[in-house]
Amino acid sequence: MSCELCDQAGGPLLWQGDRARVVLVDDADYPGFCRVIWQAHVKEMTDLPEADQLHLMRLVFAVEAVLRTVLQPEKINLASLGNMTPHLHWHVIPRFRDDRHFPSPVWAAAAREQSAQALPDGWQVRLRESLSACLDALG
Amino acid sequence: MSCELCDQAGGPLLWQGDRARVVLVDDADYPGFCRVIWQAHVKEMTDLPEADQLHLMRLVFAVEAVLRTVLQPEKINLASLGNMTPHLHWHVIPRFRDDRHFPSPVWAAAAREQSAQALPDGWQVRLRESLSACLDALG
Repeated sequence: MSCELCDQAGGPLLWQGDRARVVLVDDADYPGFCRVIWQAHVKEMTDLPEADQLHLMRLVFAVEAVLRTVLQPEKINLASLGNMTPHLHWHVIPRFRDDRHFPSPVWAAAAREQSAQALPDGWQVRLRESLSACLDALG
Repeated sequence: MSCELCDQAGGPLLWQGDRARVVLVDDADYPGFCRVIWQAHVKEMTDLPEADQLHLMRLVFAVEAVLRTVLQPEKINLASLGNMTPHLHWHVIPRFRDDRHFPSPVWAAAAREQSAQALPDGWQVRLRESLSACLDALG
């Protein structure tokens, strides 16, 4: 069975570590939407040894922290679903009051035509630099 | 501001610890859908000290492990959203190939009229007993 997260990066690479990588999700409604992808093909969090579970969550929370600092969203949404692609990955989604689905989950019916928020100038550079600084420390 | 997860249990209580509780979500399409709710009114994972972040995740993963053992789902979905109720809580959702939304997230448009899976006899008792055994050890 081929797996798209084994075969491809899954989006523009923001950071790469030994055990996981972070990519930017290409979604016009959700700039700053990041995915933290485990390198090995593993299905569930509880298929990982505890040390790896906690390492992956530290990475997810570091991405959350950086997104909060750089984008100042109303809320962060975290999710590990993987029904279609059962290769462990976490969605880290900055949410804004005027985004396309708020306050519903991004997978629900849209609440408005399009997202209206304007992100601060240079957010992509700041996101990449801050992620490198924080995630390199975690390995 | 009143908060429904401060004011109410949020569902039938399956387990109660010092820092968090686990409730069963009342959703006819998703039997076994559990929520792990932090006791204190905290908005984001990164508002917690690291020790509490990891404790909460250990509880979430223990619930995942128990659900996998008792219900043998196709997939577990984990999510911390909180756009409407910004009081830290994790959805732990056992997913089945013939459930109402599979393989979409449970918040998406339904894929079929209703869920068809039959859960094993006595699953509720086994879920409660297994959760107690696993979660009491984590505190």
